[in-house]
Amino acid sequence: MKRIASTKNERVKEWKKLQSRKKREERGLFLIEGLHLIEEALKYKSIVQELIVLDGAKLPNHFFEGTIPTTIVSKEVFSLLSEMDSPQGVMAVCKQLRWEIDLNVKKWLLIDAVQDPGNLGTIIRTADAAGMDVVILGDGTVDLYNSKTIRATQGSIFHLPVINSSLKPIISKLKEEKIPVFGTSTKNAVFYKEIPPSETFALLVGNEGNGVSKELLDMTDQNLHIPIYGKAESLNVAVASAIFMYHLRK
Amino acid sequence: MKRIASTKNERVKEWKKLQSRKKREERGLFLIEGLHLIEEALKYKSIVQELIVLDGAKLPNHFFEGTIPTTIVSKEVFSLLSEMDSPQGVMAVCKQLRWEIDLNVKKWLLIDAVQDPGNLGTIIRTADAAGMDVVILGDGTVDLYNSKTIRATQGSIFHLPVINSSLKPIISKLKEEKIPVFGTSTKNAVFYKEIPPSETFALLVGNEGNGVSKELLDMTDQNLHIPIYGKAESLNVAVASAIFMYHLRK
Repeated sequence: MKRIASTKNERVKEWKKLQSRKKREERGLFLIEGLHLIEEALKYKSIVQELIVLDGAKLPNHFFEGTIPTTIVSKEVFSLLSEMDSPQGVMAVCKQLRWEIDLNVKKWLLIDAVQDPGNLGTIIRTADAAGMDVVILGDGTVDLYNSKTIRATQGSIFHLPVINSSLKPIISKLKEEKIPVFGTSTKNAVFYKEIPPSETFALLVGNEGNGVSKELLDMTDQNLHIPIYGKAESLNVAVASAIFMYHLRK
Repeated sequence: MKRIASTKNERVKEWKKLQSRKKREERGLFLIEGLHLIEEALKYKSIVQELIVLDGAKLPNHFFEGTIPTTIVSKEVFSLLSEMDSPQGVMAVCKQLRWEIDLNVKKWLLIDAVQDPGNLGTIIRTADAAGMDVVILGDGTVDLYNSKTIRATQGSIFHLPVINSSLKPIISKLKEEKIPVFGTSTKNAVFYKEIPPSETFALLVGNEGNGVSKELLDMTDQNLHIPIYGKAESLNVAVASAIFMYHLRK
């Protein structure tokens, strides 16, 4: 096993660059951190490229028994790379996931420009739990490989296809396939409970401040809203997405 | 209007102390930050004790026209106190809210030891939106007046009673009042959609890792669960609470 003690090491600099979206995209790689996430990633062995382990970290034996290249690093190096409040002493460099769009699947979640990484990650976790088949990240959506997004997915990033794609052509294709597309909006929308649960649907949710863009709302079959019974101005987008998904699915 | 430039000023030290739960409780005060939250607080004028404004901050005129004591502070002082990523140049010292428990209300949310301030704030925001009448924070729940909790409530902290109280005696009283109490659990629980929506109910949600304590689950009328259709291990507690609340309410 290799060992690196210096934060000036070239490999360390290369890992550090993976904290930038641009560099992640250039390299086709991303970093994950923490035991649970890495356990989930290891189920898809081909994506974990290398492990970075803090010298002295207590990890399950199987972390050291596999064939994945592992580097033991000093506290200084690990601290430089870690983004967790309570680091667990292990990170992994993973290959970005490449999924193809499959028009035969039934439950679609379309995301229009959600900005907060915690919200995006929580939405993906909920989509996984709700049994959605695919999540499409439209233009202007925060990076899937942002460390906060990944952490909030709690591993669901590895469980279902999450694909970057402009939403207009997707919605057009879904309509050709006769998959009903439900937008979400506080205006000109019907009470979501009026729509019966079904096996096949696409749900379109939007930006924290502005909601789904008008252009996309104009393309849907129906737009839905969740009533506000109290004095809150709105619901958090991850919360609203969850209410819609669990209501709509059969 | 008073002006304070030095971070060594005694008033500044006193404000800074309000970032600690213990000091907040001793003083019966808390800090809020940002235009939207302060606008919401000002609707309940008696709770806003003083305003702290960054020298040169652009604020709506009515912030300076009221009778609330206002202090203009230097950038150094404001930076010392601010906990926002993009500070808006205004904070307020507020009196902690004192609510009495009213057994005549119909929709109760009981929270058992939720630990993450963002989760707690989001749950309170959703409870407000869903028209819940009261939120009870059981023992071991994170502080309502934590700045992250308050921010996540998006002002809902001012919209409905949120009360610290042990949950055992509350559940006993609700049962005497014939208000059905629904626990939430992944084990020995019925599919939540089997319970019809109603006007009157209490929902009990729990800690991020451990859920609701067994002792409390044993006291409920019925325990509910949300199915996981995909590969996720669980739902975020704020997401699960939202699905339950919006399903259960009529």
